[in-house]
Amino acid sequence: MTDSSLKSGTEDFLRDTAAAVEQELATILPQSTERDSRLFDAMRYGVLGGGKRLRASLLRSCAHVAGADDRNAVFAAAIVELVHGYSLVHDDLPAMDDDMLRRGKPTCHIAFDEATAILAGDALLTLAFELSADSRLNGDPGIRCEFSSALAAAAGGDGMVGGQMVDLRSENRPESDLELVKLISMKKTAALIAFSCEAGAILAGQAGQEKRRSLREFGFEIGLGFQIVDDLLDVCGDEKKLGKAVGMDAKRGKATFVTSLGVEGARREADSLFTCALARLEGMGKRTRTLRGITEILRDRQS
Amino acid sequence: MTDSSLKSGTEDFLRDTAAAVEQELATILPQSTERDSRLFDAMRYGVLGGGKRLRASLLRSCAHVAGADDRNAVFAAAIVELVHGYSLVHDDLPAMDDDMLRRGKPTCHIAFDEATAILAGDALLTLAFELSADSRLNGDPGIRCEFSSALAAAAGGDGMVGGQMVDLRSENRPESDLELVKLISMKKTAALIAFSCEAGAILAGQAGQEKRRSLREFGFEIGLGFQIVDDLLDVCGDEKKLGKAVGMDAKRGKATFVTSLGVEGARREADSLFTCALARLEGMGKRTRTLRGITEILRDRQS
Repeated sequence: MTDSSLKSGTEDFLRDTAAAVEQELATILPQSTERDSRLFDAMRYGVLGGGKRLRASLLRSCAHVAGADDRNAVFAAAIVELVHGYSLVHDDLPAMDDDMLRRGKPTCHIAFDEATAILAGDALLTLAFELSADSRLNGDPGIRCEFSSALAAAAGGDGMVGGQMVDLRSENRPESDLELVKLISMKKTAALIAFSCEAGAILAGQAGQEKRRSLREFGFEIGLGFQIVDDLLDVCGDEKKLGKAVGMDAKRGKATFVTSLGVEGARREADSLFTCALARLEGMGKRTRTLRGITEILRDRQS
Repeated sequence: MTDSSLKSGTEDFLRDTAAAVEQELATILPQSTERDSRLFDAMRYGVLGGGKRLRASLLRSCAHVAGADDRNAVFAAAIVELVHGYSLVHDDLPAMDDDMLRRGKPTCHIAFDEATAILAGDALLTLAFELSADSRLNGDPGIRCEFSSALAAAAGGDGMVGGQMVDLRSENRPESDLELVKLISMKKTAALIAFSCEAGAILAGQAGQEKRRSLREFGFEIGLGFQIVDDLLDVCGDEKKLGKAVGMDAKRGKATFVTSLGVEGARREADSLFTCALARLEGMGKRTRTLRGITEILRDRQS
């Protein structure tokens, strides 16, 4: 049951976070210089001005739940968005998903070229780790190391990169089983979302320890739920609302939650995950209102 | 003037370091599992069994000069070799240098495929930063953050990646000036070599602070010298000794130190850099013998 003041309050928070993170990113991304302009331009192109900043909003509201400093959380959120941005730039490459458009704009390798897109992605990932060691993230270097280590685990060969690898290899094999679809989504999508939630607790240091595991589990639930809704929208969504073509998964012969479970089954699975996630928030004290709002928005989204 | 016991002692050290780092890498790289075997195989392929491990040996002998723990230094050396390995895998890609052979073996995207090579590089870079936050690097998280931050600065958009970008854009422009050739070499090659030297001092913590800047400057000198010798060998080297084709720079229309300075001029420039580097070591106490040996080997190398 959604109450409308929760929804509008959460939407204000999402907008505010998107603006704050955009500003942070514009500051931390390198400015073009005479000789390196192309690389820096491509880095900025790949990250600025785009997306709902879901990971950033989750990180910031989980930091609020865990009692971490909001300024640190916005900085951390910008780091996560750098990693998300790099992954999109590389995933769009011709050798990977070969996408020409993202959010209505030419993808990075189309706007620039393939080599530049590869290097821009590499530089964005490297910058994310450079900033993870920066005291603007947190004054305690032990906390910075924990953040960096957990970010790398979520993003690397056992996480996001590993998920993309398995995903590529399962294209044109729509017979793939549910377990495989789940594995891919857990790694490719949910791992970085779960990290974004866990990071809120990491930034709170000792005070956040108790909530760390719960926020991480919460993140995996909504991350998986998010992917299922994505799969559903690709079948049942409205192209105009979505701002992108639907039916792409089928076109690619991709196994999804919908090919595995059917539309009804996938919807039930998503609802069940969001219900679990909301129940988990009940046990986490009074500061979870925004996080609850985000969860409901993710559950109910039409785009 | 090279004394032959120094040379053979240094060669023993290089062999010992290569073996120690190989073992460390074999341990820290993920083992293949049923579902992810391809990515992990490609990561191992890109890093194991290859190269002189120059950066590793420099790191370890600079750690000795600065008084850091040798066990930490070997771990750090493995991290630097992960970053070096990722950079080779990405540089060899069709969209970049389009190389099919490296050290007599098919390059990663030939042995696997392009998407796998991109992802393996991404995962290697991410793993390097995951391990930079690991207590096996150093018990002090403040030191781990300094290491991680300096590594990222050397490897990222202002360092190695930036150098590769400028290098790609200057192909087929052999008229490029010496300043540009120097800029590319400083970023693309010397930055990570200089970091490897600086890292020895970083690992020593407070005790290494005094030597940190000198080791870094030393690293830039030998790094630049190393690149000039590479350019010379591509013109004057023996294909058999080198184990690779010569004349590739000319074929690609690449501006090099040789096209800018001529063979004699480039040799003089390299000698002058190595002489400066050796002089710098004089001021750094008694533990510099191996580092001197490495410097002389780099100066005199025929392959």
